[in-house]
Amino acid sequence: MARYKVILAYDGTDFYGFQRQAGTSKTRTVQGVFETALRRIGWQGRSILAAGRTDTGVHASGQVIAFDHEWRHTTQDLKAALNANLPADAVVRSLRETKADFHPRYDALSRCYRYQIYCQPVRDPLRARFAWRVWPQPDLARMQRAAVSLVGEHDFAAFGAPTRPGGATIRRVLRAEWVQEADTLTFWVVGNAFLYHMVRRLVGYQVDIGQSKVDLDHLKTMLDESGHPTVQRLAPPNGLTLMQVVYRP
Amino acid sequence: MARYKVILAYDGTDFYGFQRQAGTSKTRTVQGVFETALRRIGWQGRSILAAGRTDTGVHASGQVIAFDHEWRHTTQDLKAALNANLPADAVVRSLRETKADFHPRYDALSRCYRYQIYCQPVRDPLRARFAWRVWPQPDLARMQRAAVSLVGEHDFAAFGAPTRPGGATIRRVLRAEWVQEADTLTFWVVGNAFLYHMVRRLVGYQVDIGQSKVDLDHLKTMLDESGHPTVQRLAPPNGLTLMQVVYRP
Repeated sequence: MARYKVILAYDGTDFYGFQRQAGTSKTRTVQGVFETALRRIGWQGRSILAAGRTDTGVHASGQVIAFDHEWRHTTQDLKAALNANLPADAVVRSLRETKADFHPRYDALSRCYRYQIYCQPVRDPLRARFAWRVWPQPDLARMQRAAVSLVGEHDFAAFGAPTRPGGATIRRVLRAEWVQEADTLTFWVVGNAFLYHMVRRLVGYQVDIGQSKVDLDHLKTMLDESGHPTVQRLAPPNGLTLMQVVYRP
Repeated sequence: MARYKVILAYDGTDFYGFQRQAGTSKTRTVQGVFETALRRIGWQGRSILAAGRTDTGVHASGQVIAFDHEWRHTTQDLKAALNANLPADAVVRSLRETKADFHPRYDALSRCYRYQIYCQPVRDPLRARFAWRVWPQPDLARMQRAAVSLVGEHDFAAFGAPTRPGGATIRRVLRAEWVQEADTLTFWVVGNAFLYHMVRRLVGYQVDIGQSKVDLDHLKTMLDESGHPTVQRLAPPNGLTLMQVVYRP
């Protein structure tokens, strides 16, 4: 028996999120299809471990999962066998053996998310799957200033609920930056961890700032304000992709 | 009654091509959903006109269509009414009144197509919809040399059948170029017109050249050889997008 670490990519459009739903096998989840693929190659475990539980419609290019399995062939064969049993919208990008106590969530040092926006007066069917359409075009300089003030250790309670009731709402943001390319605005954010819906609330709020619906100074009063989430505007899930989870080398 | 020119974009994945199928309304086509949208706003015509009949699974960012309609409101309203009646995977990007005898196919001076490839050992669910996965990575310099020799007026019979039986197979290619960005290879091709499946055969053949399965010199013997299509390898439809159709100003 060995523990394996897997980097997983998926198009979240047709999944009801990452996490398998208790008591039903009818809801299509990433965890569900992955565990089904594992069982087809002889796995008898109860549950895989994952770095983050992405919401319904959120994509991943670098989700990390782990599972224990007895496998007599090479890891290259294990990767191929899993990919042959996964549906077209999910894939194992890499797979390797890891230490027996590796935990993709607790051992993670940081997570990197990307949020894509395109600025057009009408919807674009070629981009709708992976980006949020925003119009009128928000002011990049205002959004960039907002992003800068997110960096550091803050109480993000206004932007999200803790993953367990009563949990801490302080998170450390290591990088927050908007990148513009033609009519596309991409938000890159790296943090030690994120609250529930935090990235989507940060994006929605920054777009409001960029469209001058919210004053830039207001952000500073929102940060480090403890309590419940007060930002209601949630950017849609399809623009969001979990890009990478970083571990100690 | 006036004639309208429309620039249309669609994600071709869930359409059985552009052209409405004779005798059945069950097959979902771009023409079918567009004519349905038009009828919902009072159109009583028999058929729209289009610049090109894209295959099943081929996308468009700049398909051009035309139709006659009696409309008492602004063109801005007509565009909004159509978009409200089109499904999420098709959209009117622009709409304007044009001259009564405008024909999107016969009046076109040139068409621009884009074909996207990504080079990865395993499939990528975030790119599979709009790009063809090719591995091992083809040699860009070889493909670029192949592209250069396509430019000009040639008999492309080896690469495609004429759109009507016995029709001419000579076409003029104005631009043919590969652009690399990280692991993505994009083929841009502009021509006065294209034979049936011609772009997909050109891409498949150039990838064979890039992977050294076919000799570069062989291309020159294929060009200007009349007869039937001899290139069997067809790049899959999902990498292809009709980008633009150009008319006299």
